[in-house]
Amino acid sequence: MTSTPAKEPTLFWEDFSVGQVREFGRKAVTREEILDFASKYDPQPIHLDEEAAAASLFGRLSASGWHTCSMAMRMVCDNYLVNAASLGSPGVENLKWLKPVLVGDVLRVRTKVTESRPMNSRPNVGLVRMTWEVINQHNNVALHMDSWAMFRRRDVEVD
Amino acid sequence: MTSTPAKEPTLFWEDFSVGQVREFGRKAVTREEILDFASKYDPQPIHLDEEAAAASLFGRLSASGWHTCSMAMRMVCDNYLVNAASLGSPGVENLKWLKPVLVGDVLRVRTKVTESRPMNSRPNVGLVRMTWEVINQHNNVALHMDSWAMFRRRDVEVD
Repeated sequence: MTSTPAKEPTLFWEDFSVGQVREFGRKAVTREEILDFASKYDPQPIHLDEEAAAASLFGRLSASGWHTCSMAMRMVCDNYLVNAASLGSPGVENLKWLKPVLVGDVLRVRTKVTESRPMNSRPNVGLVRMTWEVINQHNNVALHMDSWAMFRRRDVEVD
Repeated sequence: MTSTPAKEPTLFWEDFSVGQVREFGRKAVTREEILDFASKYDPQPIHLDEEAAAASLFGRLSASGWHTCSMAMRMVCDNYLVNAASLGSPGVENLKWLKPVLVGDVLRVRTKVTESRPMNSRPNVGLVRMTWEVINQHNNVALHMDSWAMFRRRDVEVD
Protein backbone atom coordinates (compact mmCIF):
# COMPACT_ATOMS: atom_id res chain seq x y z
CA MET A 1 0.00 0.00 0.00
CA THR A 2 1.01 3.60 -0.46
CA SER A 3 2.12 5.01 2.82
CA THR A 4 1.55 8.64 3.66
CA PRO A 5 4.23 10.00 5.95
CA ALA A 6 2.75 11.18 9.22
CA LYS A 7 2.42 14.94 9.23
CA GLU A 8 4.34 16.99 11.75
CA PRO A 9 1.82 17.65 14.54
CA THR A 10 0.75 21.21 15.23
CA LEU A 11 -1.19 20.58 18.44
CA PHE A 12 0.45 19.43 21.67
CA TRP A 13 -0.72 18.88 25.25
CA GLU A 14 -0.25 22.57 25.99
CA ASP A 15 -2.83 23.44 23.33
CA PHE A 16 -5.68 21.83 25.26
CA SER A 17 -6.32 24.10 28.22
CA VAL A 18 -9.09 23.71 30.77
CA GLY A 19 -12.31 25.45 29.74
CA GLN A 20 -11.52 25.42 26.03
CA VAL A 21 -14.56 24.63 23.87
CA ARG A 22 -14.52 23.45 20.26
CA GLU A 23 -17.62 22.91 18.12
CA PHE A 24 -17.30 21.34 14.69
CA GLY A 25 -18.46 18.77 12.17
CA ARG A 26 -21.52 18.28 10.03
CA LYS A 27 -22.33 14.63 9.56
CA ALA A 28 -25.52 13.75 7.71
CA VAL A 29 -26.61 10.29 8.81
CA THR A 30 -27.75 8.10 5.93
CA ARG A 31 -29.82 4.95 5.87
CA GLU A 32 -27.06 3.20 3.91
CA GLU A 33 -24.42 3.94 6.52
CA ILE A 34 -26.66 2.88 9.42
CA LEU A 35 -27.31 -0.43 7.62
CA ASP A 36 -23.64 -0.91 6.70
CA PHE A 37 -22.44 -0.41 10.27
CA ALA A 38 -25.25 -2.45 11.83
CA SER A 39 -24.80 -5.38 9.47
CA LYS A 40 -21.14 -5.60 10.48
CA TYR A 41 -21.22 -4.75 14.17
CA ASP A 42 -24.68 -4.46 15.68
CA PRO A 43 -27.26 -6.57 13.81
CA GLN A 44 -30.19 -5.83 16.09
CA PRO A 45 -33.49 -5.42 14.22
CA ILE A 46 -33.96 -1.75 15.27
CA HIS A 47 -30.71 -0.88 13.44
CA LEU A 48 -31.13 -3.22 10.49
CA ASP A 49 -34.77 -3.90 9.75
CA GLU A 50 -37.16 -1.19 8.52
CA GLU A 51 -40.24 -2.99 9.78
CA ALA A 52 -38.88 -3.70 13.26
CA ALA A 53 -37.64 -0.10 13.41
CA ALA A 54 -41.08 1.22 12.44
CA ALA A 55 -42.64 -0.79 15.25
CA SER A 56 -40.05 0.37 17.79
CA LEU A 57 -40.13 3.34 20.14
CA PHE A 58 -38.25 5.51 17.63
CA GLY A 59 -40.40 4.63 14.60
CA ARG A 60 -37.43 4.73 12.22
CA LEU A 61 -34.06 3.07 11.72
CA SER A 62 -31.68 4.25 14.42
CA ALA A 63 -27.90 4.07 14.40
CA SER A 64 -26.06 1.68 16.68
CA GLY A 65 -24.74 3.52 19.71
CA TRP A 66 -21.25 2.40 18.71
CA HIS A 67 -21.83 3.87 15.28
CA THR A 68 -22.61 7.21 16.91
CA CYS A 69 -19.38 6.99 18.91
CA SER A 70 -17.53 6.18 15.69
CA MET A 71 -19.06 9.09 13.79
CA ALA A 72 -18.03 11.38 16.66
CA MET A 73 -14.50 9.98 16.47
CA ARG A 74 -14.35 10.74 12.77
CA MET A 75 -15.38 14.35 13.32
CA VAL A 76 -12.80 14.69 16.10
CA CYS A 77 -10.10 13.22 13.85
CA ASP A 78 -10.98 15.57 11.00
CA ASN A 79 -11.17 18.62 13.24
CA TYR A 80 -8.02 18.33 15.32
CA LEU A 81 -6.85 14.86 16.22
CA VAL A 82 -4.92 14.03 13.05
CA ASN A 83 -2.99 17.27 13.54
CA ALA A 84 -2.26 16.56 17.18
CA ALA A 85 0.66 14.77 18.81
CA SER A 86 -1.84 12.18 20.02
CA LEU A 87 -0.72 9.12 21.92
CA GLY A 88 -4.13 7.52 22.12
CA SER A 89 -6.69 7.23 24.86
CA PRO A 90 -6.72 5.11 27.99
CA GLY A 91 -10.50 5.20 28.08
CA VAL A 92 -13.81 6.96 28.46
CA GLU A 93 -16.13 7.61 31.41
CA ASN A 94 -19.86 8.26 31.57
CA LEU A 95 -20.72 7.30 28.03
CA LYS A 96 -24.44 8.07 27.66
CA TRP A 97 -26.68 7.49 24.69
CA LEU A 98 -29.25 10.19 25.39
CA LYS A 99 -31.23 10.42 22.16
CA PRO A 100 -31.58 8.08 19.20
CA VAL A 101 -29.63 8.94 16.06
CA LEU A 102 -32.01 8.55 13.12
CA VAL A 103 -31.79 8.52 9.34
CA GLY A 104 -31.60 12.13 8.19
CA ASP A 105 -30.11 13.51 11.39
CA VAL A 106 -27.26 15.99 11.02
CA LEU A 107 -24.70 15.68 13.77
CA ARG A 108 -21.95 17.88 15.09
CA VAL A 109 -19.54 17.59 18.02
CA ARG A 110 -18.83 19.91 20.92
CA THR A 111 -15.78 19.24 23.08
CA LYS A 112 -14.82 20.95 26.31
CA VAL A 113 -11.57 20.45 28.17
CA THR A 114 -12.37 19.73 31.82
CA GLU A 115 -9.03 18.61 33.22
CA SER A 116 -5.38 18.68 32.19
CA ARG A 117 -2.25 17.42 33.87
CA PRO A 118 1.22 16.12 33.08
CA MET A 119 1.58 12.34 33.30
CA ASN A 120 3.66 11.40 36.30
CA SER A 121 5.14 8.28 34.76
CA ARG A 122 6.00 9.93 31.42
CA PRO A 123 7.24 13.51 31.77
CA ASN A 124 6.96 14.24 28.05
CA VAL A 125 3.27 13.28 27.98
CA GLY A 126 0.21 15.10 29.26
CA LEU A 127 -3.29 13.86 29.98
CA VAL A 128 -6.42 15.77 28.99
CA ARG A 129 -9.98 15.03 30.03
CA MET A 130 -12.57 16.31 27.62
CA THR A 131 -16.34 16.14 27.49
CA TRP A 132 -17.54 15.13 24.04
CA GLU A 133 -21.11 15.80 23.06
CA VAL A 134 -22.77 14.77 19.82
CA ILE A 135 -25.52 17.27 19.04
CA ASN A 136 -28.24 16.84 16.44
CA GLN A 137 -30.01 19.35 14.18
CA HIS A 138 -32.60 19.99 16.92
CA ASN A 139 -29.75 20.96 19.26
CA ASN A 140 -30.38 17.90 21.38
CA VAL A 141 -27.38 16.13 22.87
CA ALA A 142 -27.58 12.59 21.51
CA LEU A 143 -24.34 11.30 23.03
CA HIS A 144 -22.22 12.36 25.98
CA MET A 145 -18.87 11.05 27.14
CA ASP A 146 -15.90 12.11 29.22
CA SER A 147 -12.87 11.10 27.22
CA TRP A 148 -9.27 10.87 28.37
CA ALA A 149 -6.52 11.54 25.85
CA MET A 150 -2.73 11.53 25.95
CA PHE A 151 -0.71 14.08 24.01
CA ARG A 152 3.01 14.71 23.71
CA ARG A 153 4.19 17.88 25.42
CA ARG A 154 5.58 20.57 23.20
CA ASP A 155 9.00 21.25 24.60
CA VAL A 156 9.81 18.39 26.89
CA GLU A 157 12.47 16.08 25.56
CA VAL A 158 13.35 12.83 27.25
CA ASP A 159 16.40 10.65 26.82
CA MET B 1 -35.54 -4.30 1.20
CA THR B 2 -36.57 -7.71 2.48
CA SER B 3 -37.65 -7.43 6.04
CA THR B 4 -37.06 -10.28 8.46
CA PRO B 5 -39.71 -10.41 11.16
CA ALA B 6 -38.15 -9.98 14.60
CA LYS B 7 -37.85 -13.36 16.30
CA GLU B 8 -39.73 -13.98 19.50
CA PRO B 9 -37.19 -13.29 22.26
CA THR B 10 -36.12 -16.15 24.50
CA LEU B 11 -34.15 -14.10 27.05
CA PHE B 12 -35.75 -11.58 29.39
CA TRP B 13 -34.56 -9.43 32.30
CA GLU B 14 -35.04 -12.39 34.67
CA ASP B 15 -32.47 -14.40 32.69
CA PHE B 16 -29.60 -12.08 33.64
CA SER B 17 -28.94 -12.73 37.30
CA VAL B 18 -26.14 -11.21 39.35
CA GLY B 19 -22.94 -13.23 39.22
CA GLN B 20 -23.75 -14.92 35.92
CA VAL B 21 -20.73 -15.22 33.62
CA ARG B 22 -20.80 -15.85 29.88
CA GLU B 23 -17.71 -16.36 27.72
CA PHE B 24 -18.06 -16.55 23.95
CA GLY B 25 -16.92 -15.45 20.52
CA ARG B 26 -13.88 -16.00 18.36
CA LYS B 27 -13.09 -12.96 16.27
CA ALA B 28 -9.90 -13.06 14.20
CA VAL B 29 -8.82 -9.47 13.57
CA THR B 30 -7.70 -8.86 10.00
CA ARG B 31 -5.64 -6.08 8.47
CA GLU B 32 -8.41 -5.44 5.94
CA GLU B 33 -11.03 -4.89 8.61
CA ILE B 34 -8.77 -2.61 10.67
CA LEU B 35 -8.15 -0.51 7.57
CA ASP B 36 -11.83 -0.50 6.56
CA PHE B 37 -13.00 0.71 9.98
CA ALA B 38 -10.19 3.23 10.39
CA SER B 39 -10.65 4.74 6.95
CA LYS B 40 -14.31 5.42 7.77
CA TYR B 41 -14.20 6.37 11.43
CA ASP B 42 -10.72 6.81 12.87
CA PRO B 43 -8.17 7.80 10.23
CA GLN B 44 -5.22 8.19 12.57
CA PRO B 45 -1.93 6.96 11.07
CA ILE B 46 -1.44 4.19 13.67
CA HIS B 47 -4.70 2.58 12.49
CA LEU B 48 -4.29 3.29 8.79
CA ASP B 49 -0.67 3.55 7.78
CA GLU B 50 1.70 0.58 7.94
CA GLU B 51 4.79 2.75 8.20
CA ALA B 52 3.46 4.97 10.96
CA ALA B 53 2.23 1.85 12.77
CA ALA B 54 5.66 0.22 12.48
CA ALA B 55 7.25 3.31 14.03
CA SER B 56 4.69 3.44 16.85
CA LEU B 57 4.79 1.90 20.30
CA PHE B 58 2.92 -1.19 19.10
CA GLY B 59 5.02 -1.82 15.98
CA ARG B 60 2.01 -2.98 13.95
CA LEU B 61 -1.36 -1.73 12.77
CA SER B 62 -3.72 -1.53 15.72
CA ALA B 63 -7.49 -1.36 15.65
CA SER B 64 -9.32 1.81 16.58
CA GLY B 65 -10.62 1.58 20.13
CA TRP B 66 -14.11 2.12 18.75
CA HIS B 67 -13.55 -0.77 16.38
CA THR B 68 -12.77 -3.00 19.36
CA CYS B 69 -15.99 -1.87 21.06
CA SER B 70 -17.86 -2.63 17.85
CA MET B 71 -16.33 -6.10 17.49
CA ALA B 72 -17.34 -6.80 21.10
CA MET B 73 -20.87 -5.63 20.31
CA ARG B 74 -21.06 -8.02 17.38
CA MET B 75 -20.01 -10.96 19.53
CA VAL B 76 -22.56 -9.97 22.17
CA CYS B 77 -25.29 -9.72 19.51
CA ASP B 78 -24.43 -13.12 18.06
CA ASN B 79 -24.21 -14.79 21.44
CA TYR B 80 -27.35 -13.56 23.20
CA LEU B 81 -28.52 -10.05 22.40
CA VAL B 82 -30.47 -10.78 19.22
CA ASN B 83 -32.39 -13.43 21.17
CA ALA B 84 -33.10 -11.12 24.08
CA ALA B 85 -36.01 -8.77 24.71
CA SER B 86 -33.50 -5.92 24.58
CA LEU B 87 -34.62 -2.32 24.85
CA GLY B 88 -31.21 -0.81 24.26
CA SER B 89 -28.61 0.69 26.53
CA PRO B 90 -28.58 4.02 28.35
CA GLY B 91 -24.79 3.98 28.43
CA VAL B 92 -21.47 2.59 29.56
CA GLU B 93 -19.14 3.37 32.47
CA ASN B 94 -15.41 2.84 32.89
CA LEU B 95 -14.57 2.07 29.29
CA LYS B 96 -10.87 1.21 29.29
CA TRP B 97 -8.63 0.34 26.36
CA LEU B 98 -6.05 -1.74 28.22
CA LYS B 99 -4.11 -3.44 25.43
CA PRO B 100 -3.76 -2.72 21.73
CA VAL B 101 -5.73 -4.93 19.35
CA LEU B 102 -3.38 -5.95 16.55
CA VAL B 103 -3.63 -7.66 13.18
CA GLY B 104 -3.83 -11.41 13.81
CA ASP B 105 -5.30 -11.14 17.31
CA VAL B 106 -8.14 -13.51 18.14
CA LEU B 107 -10.69 -11.95 20.47
CA ARG B 108 -13.42 -13.30 22.67
CA VAL B 109 -15.80 -11.68 25.16
CA ARG B 110 -16.50 -12.40 28.80
CA THR B 111 -19.53 -10.81 30.43
CA LYS B 112 -20.46 -10.83 34.09
CA VAL B 113 -23.71 -9.52 35.54
CA THR B 114 -22.87 -7.20 38.44
CA GLU B 115 -26.21 -5.55 39.19
CA SER B 116 -29.86 -6.09 38.34
CA ARG B 117 -32.99 -4.19 39.29
CA PRO B 118 -36.46 -3.38 38.01
CA MET B 119 -36.82 0.05 36.46
CA ASN B 120 -38.89 2.29 38.70
CA SER B 121 -40.38 4.36 35.91
CA ARG B 122 -41.25 1.36 33.71
CA PRO B 123 -42.49 -1.65 35.69
CA ASN B 124 -42.23 -4.02 32.71
CA VAL B 125 -38.55 -3.21 32.17
CA GLY B 126 -35.48 -4.25 34.14
CA LEU B 127 -31.97 -2.83 34.17
CA VAL B 128 -28.85 -4.97 34.15
CA ARG B 129 -25.27 -3.85 34.70
CA MET B 130 -22.69 -6.11 33.14
CA THR B 131 -18.94 -6.02 32.91
CA TRP B 132 -17.78 -6.72 29.38
CA GLU B 133 -14.20 -7.78 28.79
CA VAL B 134 -12.57 -8.36 25.44
CA ILE B 135 -9.82 -10.95 25.87
CA ASN B 136 -7.13 -11.77 23.34
CA GLN B 137 -5.37 -15.05 22.48
CA HIS B 138 -2.75 -14.34 25.18
CA ASN B 139 -5.58 -14.14 27.73
CA ASN B 140 -4.94 -10.44 28.19
CA VAL B 141 -7.92 -8.17 28.74
CA ALA B 142 -7.76 -5.64 25.89
CA LEU B 143 -10.98 -3.80 26.67
CA HIS B 144 -13.08 -3.37 29.80
CA MET B 145 -16.41 -1.67 30.24
CA ASP B 146 -19.38 -1.64 32.59
CA SER B 147 -22.42 -1.66 30.39
CA TRP B 148 -26.02 -0.92 31.33
CA ALA B 149 -28.78 -2.67 29.42
CA MET B 150 -32.58 -2.61 29.53
CA PHE B 151 -34.60 -5.77 28.98
CA ARG B 152 -38.32 -6.46 29.05
CA ARG B 153 -39.48 -8.47 32.04
CA ARG B 154 -40.89 -11.89 31.32
CA ASP B 155 -44.29 -11.82 32.90
CA VAL B 156 -45.08 -8.22 33.61
CA GLU B 157 -47.75 -6.79 31.38
CA VAL B 158 -48.61 -3.11 31.38
CA ASP B 159 -51.69 -1.38 30.01
